[in-house]
Amino acid sequence: MNYFEKSLIVHEQLRGKISINSKIPIGSRDDLSIAYTPGVAAPCEEIASDPESAYKLTIKGNSVAVVTDGSAVLGLGDIGPLAALPVMEGKALLFKEFAKIDAWPICIDTKSTEKIIETCRLLSPSFGGINLEDISAPRCFEIETALQDLGIPVFHDDQHGTAIVLMAALINAAKVVEKSLNSLRIVINGAGAAGTAIARFVSRTGFESHSDQAVDDVIVCDSKGIISKDRGDLNSVKEKLLSYSNKEDRKGSLSDALVDADVFIGVSKGNVVTPEDIRRMAKDPIIFAMANPTPEIMPEEALGAGAKVIGTGRSDFPNQVNNVLVFPGIFRGALDGRAKTINNKMKIAASEALAACVNAPTPAQILPHPLDRTVAPAIAKMVRAASRD
Amino acid sequence: MNYFEKSLIVHEQLRGKISINSKIPIGSRDDLSIAYTPGVAAPCEEIASDPESAYKLTIKGNSVAVVTDGSAVLGLGDIGPLAALPVMEGKALLFKEFAKIDAWPICIDTKSTEKIIETCRLLSPSFGGINLEDISAPRCFEIETALQDLGIPVFHDDQHGTAIVLMAALINAAKVVEKSLNSLRIVINGAGAAGTAIARFVSRTGFESHSDQAVDDVIVCDSKGIISKDRGDLNSVKEKLLSYSNKEDRKGSLSDALVDADVFIGVSKGNVVTPEDIRRMAKDPIIFAMANPTPEIMPEEALGAGAKVIGTGRSDFPNQVNNVLVFPGIFRGALDGRAKTINNKMKIAASEALAACVNAPTPAQILPHPLDRTVAPAIAKMVRAASRD
Repeated sequence: MNYFEKSLIVHEQLRGKISINSKIPIGSRDDLSIAYTPGVAAPCEEIASDPESAYKLTIKGNSVAVVTDGSAVLGLGDIGPLAALPVMEGKALLFKEFAKIDAWPICIDTKSTEKIIETCRLLSPSFGGINLEDISAPRCFEIETALQDLGIPVFHDDQHGTAIVLMAALINAAKVVEKSLNSLRIVINGAGAAGTAIARFVSRTGFESHSDQAVDDVIVCDSKGIISKDRGDLNSVKEKLLSYSNKEDRKGSLSDALVDADVFIGVSKGNVVTPEDIRRMAKDPIIFAMANPTPEIMPEEALGAGAKVIGTGRSDFPNQVNNVLVFPGIFRGALDGRAKTINNKMKIAASEALAACVNAPTPAQILPHPLDRTVAPAIAKMVRAASRD
Repeated sequence: MNYFEKSLIVHEQLRGKISINSKIPIGSRDDLSIAYTPGVAAPCEEIASDPESAYKLTIKGNSVAVVTDGSAVLGLGDIGPLAALPVMEGKALLFKEFAKIDAWPICIDTKSTEKIIETCRLLSPSFGGINLEDISAPRCFEIETALQDLGIPVFHDDQHGTAIVLMAALINAAKVVEKSLNSLRIVINGAGAAGTAIARFVSRTGFESHSDQAVDDVIVCDSKGIISKDRGDLNSVKEKLLSYSNKEDRKGSLSDALVDADVFIGVSKGNVVTPEDIRRMAKDPIIFAMANPTPEIMPEEALGAGAKVIGTGRSDFPNQVNNVLVFPGIFRGALDGRAKTINNKMKIAASEALAACVNAPTPAQILPHPLDRTVAPAIAKMVRAASRD
């Protein structure tokens, strides 16, 4: 039986992968009077006079809304908010498993950017953070940007989670190939949420805060090739990309872009890179072929053509680039630090903490195992510290 | 230490009375591949092609949103959505304790009726029902009415929960005093959410469906006395009340209304009924003095003046009229029956099931104990059956 068949059976058995747990057993009228009326009036009044006390008296300090409109779910695309629910439950389950965070799925029945923004604002009181998930580009950018003043962290995992894991993988891969991080020539294929966020995060010009480890030669390709100034078909997000990528204004195909590049990062569709492309890259190329389920190039082909390090999105190959390595820990750190946003310093801290979880990087291990339970606490600690700077 | 002091300490210790429980321990990559990617694509696709299957594959079939704007919280009034959170958590906890329902607090940061309605609509995909809570009148009526087409049950507990428990108490109290239910002359003090719903529920004319046990002589009073046709100060809700109350168009004060009445139902403020009022009522009066914390008249005073049965909202007197007797069971039955609304038949079934939980009613016991664990399943069974008629 494959994972799809097994998953369907397990979902039917469980009827929901998460449930609510009552932390006060109600065995007597006294219990009821303390947990509910009349006693509950005391914490209510405390919060009414000091809103900050909600963090110490309620679920707020440990709860995250996993918000989607179901418009860009996994490889399935726009399947709508109800069909997206199993993914959001899975995310909530992973928040609990890895970071003891209480997350609840909020599947919003609209594609309107304005209404999604407003709904997040309206339901923010009972949550300590919002994880935006599987919302299609470019709306995901607008929604996240608009909500940065909400007073609780709002984080689009498909953008930043992926960018942070990738950055950690890059830090360790650069050590393996003995190149300095900021000398790397990087080619990204895919200009959606992940590709855009990665370009912005790894490129020095895209960074709002500084990092010694930022790189400054990044080219982004979409389905029509290199995103360059002369392209007449760019949307505003791709136009903006040009302010922190393709400084030399190169033109051409993905294959052209890969000539002499040190790093390939694929976050679009599979089977778009050939062994010949790999051979034209610089010495000891680093390949992240993250398209699912079929990578941009299969690991054995890439290695056969001279790739030194290869990571994919798949669990059956080494170096799985998996967001679960980041989102539990970064939210844990943000909640513990009572951060109002997850800023670039915190994202960089998360990357560096994740990279440091691998003691001696090798071609077969530049990232920790996705189920390594020490990762989230390590990231949380550094993110919390960064939130206080 | 009183309940308020104890409650504050317990809330500080717990930092939230509910938490999320993961139903799949993630111990291996296989677990991850089944609960999350890639396997989760299978239930997603199943739901995309058959939306009803969400009930068997996700949390939807067992989850309830506890929705408030914090505008009418307990006796505290308009303390806002954040300060209302401890109450909503308490409600969620009771849903779990008594009916194994997974409920999550949604505290909405607006007083706009339209926006509350829209928010409920937008977040309905991940919930199997909505429990409206502590929303001030008359907005609570508009919101509940507007949402009856949502496809999942939307139930304002402060209205119907109270009305259903009260109706059950009335059924059993009528047995105790050996009067037929539909002969009773009833006076209600309070024309907010609870008073209006009780008047509508117990009066035959207010009923949309029929019941042998409905009564037809109901008078409602507000702070200015009997609500009658000549009053020039009535809002639209109170105007509408006149279509199913005060058929004889009586006028005057609450005291005037009580002359020859069989039943007093207080759902407003304390200390408004005197022993003299009780003495002017019909033989063997039934008194529900539910104002909190101070009842409309203290039980010993009412009994001393000739009351035969007295119920209050308090746990330290007999016959506590407590919504916890109803909301867990009625939602359990509605979810199990996959009901799209909670209609009058289901409410009547809940009342009758609750009344039947007391074998031989006595003046000191017309309702089961609020913590009686057999009540919710008994109500759920009858409500589920009623939902299928």
